[in-house]
Amino acid sequence: MLNFRYRNPVEMVFGADAITKHLKDLVAPYKSVLLLYGGGSIKKNGVYDDVVSILGKLDCKVTEFPGIEPNPHYETCMKAMEAVRNNNVDLILAVGGGSVVDASKFIAAGAHYKGADPWDFVLSGEPQSKGVHIGAILTLPATGSEMNAGCVISRGEQKLAYFSPTGFPQFSILDPKTTYTLPERQLRNGLMDSYIHVLEQYATTVNPAAKVHDRKAEGLLLVLREIADDVMNKGNDYDTRVNLMWAATNALDGSLMTGVAPDWATHLIGHTITAIYGLDHAITLAIILPGVWEHQLESKKEKLSQYLIRVFQEDTGDTMENAKLAIKRTEEFFHSLGVKTRLGDYGIDASICDKMAPHYATTGTGLGEHGNIMADDVVAILKSRL
Amino acid sequence: MLNFRYRNPVEMVFGADAITKHLKDLVAPYKSVLLLYGGGSIKKNGVYDDVVSILGKLDCKVTEFPGIEPNPHYETCMKAMEAVRNNNVDLILAVGGGSVVDASKFIAAGAHYKGADPWDFVLSGEPQSKGVHIGAILTLPATGSEMNAGCVISRGEQKLAYFSPTGFPQFSILDPKTTYTLPERQLRNGLMDSYIHVLEQYATTVNPAAKVHDRKAEGLLLVLREIADDVMNKGNDYDTRVNLMWAATNALDGSLMTGVAPDWATHLIGHTITAIYGLDHAITLAIILPGVWEHQLESKKEKLSQYLIRVFQEDTGDTMENAKLAIKRTEEFFHSLGVKTRLGDYGIDASICDKMAPHYATTGTGLGEHGNIMADDVVAILKSRL
Repeated sequence: MLNFRYRNPVEMVFGADAITKHLKDLVAPYKSVLLLYGGGSIKKNGVYDDVVSILGKLDCKVTEFPGIEPNPHYETCMKAMEAVRNNNVDLILAVGGGSVVDASKFIAAGAHYKGADPWDFVLSGEPQSKGVHIGAILTLPATGSEMNAGCVISRGEQKLAYFSPTGFPQFSILDPKTTYTLPERQLRNGLMDSYIHVLEQYATTVNPAAKVHDRKAEGLLLVLREIADDVMNKGNDYDTRVNLMWAATNALDGSLMTGVAPDWATHLIGHTITAIYGLDHAITLAIILPGVWEHQLESKKEKLSQYLIRVFQEDTGDTMENAKLAIKRTEEFFHSLGVKTRLGDYGIDASICDKMAPHYATTGTGLGEHGNIMADDVVAILKSRL
Repeated sequence: MLNFRYRNPVEMVFGADAITKHLKDLVAPYKSVLLLYGGGSIKKNGVYDDVVSILGKLDCKVTEFPGIEPNPHYETCMKAMEAVRNNNVDLILAVGGGSVVDASKFIAAGAHYKGADPWDFVLSGEPQSKGVHIGAILTLPATGSEMNAGCVISRGEQKLAYFSPTGFPQFSILDPKTTYTLPERQLRNGLMDSYIHVLEQYATTVNPAAKVHDRKAEGLLLVLREIADDVMNKGNDYDTRVNLMWAATNALDGSLMTGVAPDWATHLIGHTITAIYGLDHAITLAIILPGVWEHQLESKKEKLSQYLIRVFQEDTGDTMENAKLAIKRTEEFFHSLGVKTRLGDYGIDASICDKMAPHYATTGTGLGEHGNIMADDVVAILKSRL
């Protein structure tokens, strides 16, 4: 067990009609709001109208900034920072999915940054001490961004994660009913993203002092597997959407990183695939995760065996056999959601290796919980997933 | 699923030597510290010396206030409030177990209270908007007070719970090594208190939208059962104490009350038994819990059956039989820790009914998740536990 410090001050406001019930009071202290959103899905599902109507009743200036794209771009965020400065914005209200919430965090930290270019602190990882306040209204359960301080921003072929205490939203409003209009693809991606978030914090080495951590992680995995079929096939079932939304939030609220070394190799490889090929984030994770596990099988076998026993309720009696079966069962779970898990399934061939390798060549420490996955290993993992 | 709002801003600072590593930085912003502690156990285990040494290196005034008793008394806290005012204290540093941390919350909220008597807001339940900051150094895993905003204060035969946002510590330092000097009785009480905290938030009605809640609760119950024998018999095993301490904190961090109606009847009956008879808090819970469950068996049977299946891995195939067996297994678990679970085991006879009944006579709503446990029901529960 590693020592840790954990603090998560986000106020979660959860449940049916939470926007109309609580948004007004939550925004009331602010004088100038930047209403940040994406491609317009919130205009189709009624959330935009609700939010604009509520903001209209408040004595605050509202500046709209639409057009945050999936995998939010540096350039778009830079324009939003200008809008923040020009309008003396004191609250960025991010309405949408994880990309919009992620963008709000980079914008909040960068708007009044004193250095030359906010990209500098993304590259260096330097946390910022001051940022514009953020409020989130989440309409797509997946990334957990609504309850953590991290974001992922893309610039060209770089897709980088950044963490700063300024990234914690002051509040996040989650109404499961806002997910009713989500297309199948986004529900599936949300399920997989959440499931793999848990696994990357869990499937490392067995830590006898991390029993609380393990049981929480296994609980979330059990819930996500249990609800998966209903999420995909039961239509707008409120209870199912509650379970999905709260599980996705819990999957990346930071508590599963307390006291353990997580293995974010899958995310860090997947991010670059998305940056280069435009593949959905969750799809890249489903492709790469089994490859990382097979590559690190020796050091992960005990934990993967525990995962098989506790989450799939199977036990061959042999640790290594269990670990291999756990990988197989995980991939079968992704397949059951209709997700293909090979690069070739998406028209990507062996040329990916040459394209990807340079992105990992300069890394001082490698990826994974042991820091031992270097550029050559990334290539080996990619080859194993062709 | 009920709508909910959840926010827990406490910074948890966890691990070996966390006091010497972090206390100085955490206290540095403050000018006048009230060092609050109990009967002196922190002088025996070295924590007091460490804390005083660190505070001595800071440019802050330190006022000691020892003598916070188990089940902290109103009168003691009122004296501490005077010390806060007389010394312009801006940080109450609570060092010890849940009683000391609980006391700090009442003192923090009451020291600058403008009304006639701080007891008024305990009686009315009115949250306070301003309080002196609190820091906690926990040496006894049990109550969860280090990561919530609640406290329990005793005055005569009243032992009342009080919640206010002012009760959240700014930080809580948990070093599992500080538990090495705990006597067997306090380890046992800590295990039981934590276990029953989880159960009171869990063993209600089955809520199909509370799958994340259920799995987290069941996970903590599994951990506490799994470590119980090592806690009692393995001596100063660091990993075991990590698991105990983090499980106890997670058991009452507020997250298990999100979206569900908890049943605090056992605590609310147990508190009065402690106030009148002086019985250890955890013992009263172990006595009363089975009685509450038997009294509410019809409405709780589905959840108790789920508890049997998931935590004890048993299944008779019949819901009611499972529920009854779950009660039996729970009581057996308490017995296995050396705890007797009848009032008679502690020399308490039927006269308890007349003594206790008046404390529940004026309650508008009854106890329990349905509010249906009235004074007569409390008496029936007590009779069933003689």
